[in-house]
Amino acid sequence: MEYKILSKIKGPADVKKLNNEELNCLCEEIRGKIMETVSKNGGHLASNLGAVELTVALHRAFESPKDSIIFDVGHQCYAHKLITGRFDRFDTLRTEGGITGFMRPSESEYDPVVTGHSSTSVSLAYGIYKAKRLNDEEGTAVAVIGDGALTGGMAFEGFNNVGRNRSKFIIVLNDNKMSISRNVGALARITTKLRNRKRYHYFKFALKKFLVSIPFIGRALSSFAFAVKQGLKRRIYKNNIFESFGFNYLGPVDGHDIKKMEQLFKIAQKYTRPSVVHVITTKGKGYAFAENSPKNYHGVSPFDVEKGCDSAENKSFSDVAGNTLSKLAENNKKICAITAAMTNGTGLGDFASKYKSRFFDVGIAEQHAVGFASGLATGGMIPFFAVYSSFLQRGFDQIVHDCAIANVPVKFLIDRAGIVGEDGESHQGIFDVSYLSLIPNMNIYSPSFYGELESVIERVSENDELCAVRYPRGCELNPIDRDFSEDYTVFDGKSDVCAVTYGRIFSNVYAATENSSVTAVKLNKIYPIKDELIEKLSNFKKIVFFEESIKSGGIAEHIASRLGESGYKGEYKICAINGEFVPCASVSSSLKKYGFDIVSIKKTLGVL
Amino acid sequence: MEYKILSKIKGPADVKKLNNEELNCLCEEIRGKIMETVSKNGGHLASNLGAVELTVALHRAFESPKDSIIFDVGHQCYAHKLITGRFDRFDTLRTEGGITGFMRPSESEYDPVVTGHSSTSVSLAYGIYKAKRLNDEEGTAVAVIGDGALTGGMAFEGFNNVGRNRSKFIIVLNDNKMSISRNVGALARITTKLRNRKRYHYFKFALKKFLVSIPFIGRALSSFAFAVKQGLKRRIYKNNIFESFGFNYLGPVDGHDIKKMEQLFKIAQKYTRPSVVHVITTKGKGYAFAENSPKNYHGVSPFDVEKGCDSAENKSFSDVAGNTLSKLAENNKKICAITAAMTNGTGLGDFASKYKSRFFDVGIAEQHAVGFASGLATGGMIPFFAVYSSFLQRGFDQIVHDCAIANVPVKFLIDRAGIVGEDGESHQGIFDVSYLSLIPNMNIYSPSFYGELESVIERVSENDELCAVRYPRGCELNPIDRDFSEDYTVFDGKSDVCAVTYGRIFSNVYAATENSSVTAVKLNKIYPIKDELIEKLSNFKKIVFFEESIKSGGIAEHIASRLGESGYKGEYKICAINGEFVPCASVSSSLKKYGFDIVSIKKTLGVL
Repeated sequence: MEYKILSKIKGPADVKKLNNEELNCLCEEIRGKIMETVSKNGGHLASNLGAVELTVALHRAFESPKDSIIFDVGHQCYAHKLITGRFDRFDTLRTEGGITGFMRPSESEYDPVVTGHSSTSVSLAYGIYKAKRLNDEEGTAVAVIGDGALTGGMAFEGFNNVGRNRSKFIIVLNDNKMSISRNVGALARITTKLRNRKRYHYFKFALKKFLVSIPFIGRALSSFAFAVKQGLKRRIYKNNIFESFGFNYLGPVDGHDIKKMEQLFKIAQKYTRPSVVHVITTKGKGYAFAENSPKNYHGVSPFDVEKGCDSAENKSFSDVAGNTLSKLAENNKKICAITAAMTNGTGLGDFASKYKSRFFDVGIAEQHAVGFASGLATGGMIPFFAVYSSFLQRGFDQIVHDCAIANVPVKFLIDRAGIVGEDGESHQGIFDVSYLSLIPNMNIYSPSFYGELESVIERVSENDELCAVRYPRGCELNPIDRDFSEDYTVFDGKSDVCAVTYGRIFSNVYAATENSSVTAVKLNKIYPIKDELIEKLSNFKKIVFFEESIKSGGIAEHIASRLGESGYKGEYKICAINGEFVPCASVSSSLKKYGFDIVSIKKTLGVL
Repeated sequence: MEYKILSKIKGPADVKKLNNEELNCLCEEIRGKIMETVSKNGGHLASNLGAVELTVALHRAFESPKDSIIFDVGHQCYAHKLITGRFDRFDTLRTEGGITGFMRPSESEYDPVVTGHSSTSVSLAYGIYKAKRLNDEEGTAVAVIGDGALTGGMAFEGFNNVGRNRSKFIIVLNDNKMSISRNVGALARITTKLRNRKRYHYFKFALKKFLVSIPFIGRALSSFAFAVKQGLKRRIYKNNIFESFGFNYLGPVDGHDIKKMEQLFKIAQKYTRPSVVHVITTKGKGYAFAENSPKNYHGVSPFDVEKGCDSAENKSFSDVAGNTLSKLAENNKKICAITAAMTNGTGLGDFASKYKSRFFDVGIAEQHAVGFASGLATGGMIPFFAVYSSFLQRGFDQIVHDCAIANVPVKFLIDRAGIVGEDGESHQGIFDVSYLSLIPNMNIYSPSFYGELESVIERVSENDELCAVRYPRGCELNPIDRDFSEDYTVFDGKSDVCAVTYGRIFSNVYAATENSSVTAVKLNKIYPIKDELIEKLSNFKKIVFFEESIKSGGIAEHIASRLGESGYKGEYKICAINGEFVPCASVSSSLKKYGFDIVSIKKTLGVL
């Protein structure tokens, strides 16, 4: 595909110069570039295709970077990247050192904040907006938030705080009728209702504009007319939720009609109170496969554009977890499954269809998910909350307060634990071991293999532990046929050197030590740590701990400390991720970078 | 005061037997007992006095413990405790081994879950409700939530999830027109509007009840009449936010009229969809001082009932933090202060009144507070978010995602860090050191004295660090006049034994080592840890670390691990809170229990 117009766009100013026909071409080219790149590199597809015209309209109506535009989650910011000077490098999308898949201030002045997690845009944009006012700077801030992200409590907190202030602050509700999975909750019903209403504000404002244009008399008249119309409107259209919160509500408007959106955005800038502009977009717009099955085209691996995504991907830890739970639930009627809008991502599709009454998709609402799970467990059920490691950070307080204090046996299935690859900093599952092991009463398992994952899930479904079972994104490495039902497994070598590890990278540690004299210790239940293990390890003269996790507060530190207290005099070395966020790169490249590949492990152990 | 009726109440069944006059007496006696006990032991006063009739009505309309009644936060559950078998022991309120100030399942079968943090009740109650349905058990679950707690995102997530389901689930909105500070946000405007509406549902239901009582024809007729009235109601009273969310809205009803509330609760039980019963209560009801100034009577220390609380309490770390910030803000126009409904608790009263435009009370919304602070900092301001240690747990993900990844210089003033005393498990500030030090780019200070706190706040207001300054509840112990501007301060002894510590308990460590040969090392900036400190410590043959915090992931473990890696061969001992929650007890008693008092420290160091 040729990018006649897109290749000449160096920034938003260039987009403003285009006429209608050129704008349509631009959008087509943007879609082409997104398709070309995502089909090659993987990434978020459906949401990005849906937000092309919206992005163009935003950049025409606002003055980025003077106006800060924040795309919530950021999984719809590819068009934004393409028209803010990153077209030339866009082929490097989601590759090491390349263009990232979300907003990153380090990448461009057009990305005001980090995005990746859901429901943050209103709070962040409002902070920037307030700072501009306090600093007497020009410009505004705009939050672009999807209907899915609206279900997150943080977005609500933001709306509540913005709504009470008289600010010219603008929130764009990008309503594509679904979050990552199907949009759930009462809010979805509300937005649906709004979506089906007639456009009203739009015409009202056209009238006002006309009145204001009459010199002298016009402004006063329009203000009167405005007041009358407001009263009228209130009688005709019942208050909607955004108006209840003190927002001007504008829309709904066709999210693929640039001109109409542009006009509404400009109208919103004239209000003296905050506005919500309700924009209706089609997820996957322009690519038939994605329009028909947007949830399968949310986040994709490389695929053939002509044939679409291959739905039969390789078996993953997620599938194993979901299917195991499904199998157990057949005979154990107490087992429930909870997801926060990640039914497919966490492999719960089968469970969801088979055990409807025991399956709960609560929307992007991790706090509620944890609290709700605690309630279910208190009531005698066995709830499993399947969630990505980095997203569970949202439920940290609830794990402490609602699960751990009373030691309520909630079971966490922590997916995407460890390095996740191309999604980068915001999605790495490298903190859960530290933030969970600091909580009293918490038990943590980190299986290395599918078979082990199955056994662990079965085991914890039968005990009354508050626990987390964590496993990585993607596939197992080289499975080893052993029983891992003990808290740890020792693969005896002959020397007094020992390599300790857990989780996915055990495969590499095993391979590195297999034909050497080094003893490999695989931790299966990684926390709490028993005295017995400390005693066992004390016998080695040198211990090297490989931990695919942040070093601070990790298992290697816990063990180091216990060894130190017990008087260990040998050598101790930790190979972990130390005090940094892990940027976008393939999983294997990151594993290598931090010394977790077979060659690096051998080098570290001195067995090369 | 004599407790003629109250002393005979062994459980809710006894409350059900009382006639009107006796109920009024009961309420008076409950208030008397609360006043008597709280004035002696300290505790939550205004909210408890406001919820007396509400609690009695709930226990008459529902069948606790078969029906689970969950009081959000739990700072209004004293009446509940008094009428569920805990009158005899109520004198022990908030004392070691006594009746706790919040709900605790370990204390009574009438306390279904742990409470203490805000906005959890809907999620937990709904979990219990669902479990009862899935288990085919009788009974229901009721969430009693205040208007303040409604501003928390978790409550919204709960409402959103409940609202889409057709459940006989009941939420009681205890609207006392304010949260802990003044109720803020758009939501407050909405509840105010509702509060001022005429009671409607009540009469509508009376009609329906009458119709249903006509044999055969009645039910059909009532159902028709019901439908008509619904339509009518929608036209007369605009949709309110709860109805938008799929709830039946009942009320508002006088929260001091037992009979009326009882009726509404019973009506709510008949609906097949979830209901919100809106109850209007007066905070501090029955005690003039508290009614007139409820915020001063939210949580109180022991006081004289005749004279009221002494507002001029001893100077505390909170005051010092707030006043320092206020002083700095005079010359530095970039400094902003944020609170999550804790203006007074965090000592920000002066700042709030002097710098209105730079002061933000965002409601009980820690997630938004952190995100908003990040936005302010991104926009060039210097935001300080003053928050209790245990409540900041709610903003953990936002600290990681919205502050640390881009290294945005937000400043956290962490109040109530360490052991907090009588509020018990849910309020202990013993996790922040671990959950913050695991985050890359985070800097942590833990001043021991007022003067040091002042200097640190001044220092971080001038640097571009993302950082946390943590300090305990209450007063400094024995101040020492030294300069603590370095990362650590060494008080040289002569032997090769060293005691390391930070924060409040340094005073005790100093006192314990002052006249001994033991070297005391006070950490001032406790994280990150510099190599220089590790080298320094390596010279000692024995190191004892005293840490008023959870052991797992704390500074003592980080240092142990670093020492281990650097080949330290000496003795290492950690004295910290190990794998448990700290229950209600006075601060000094808890400090002693964990070995942080002077005598215990001396014993541990062998200098007694």
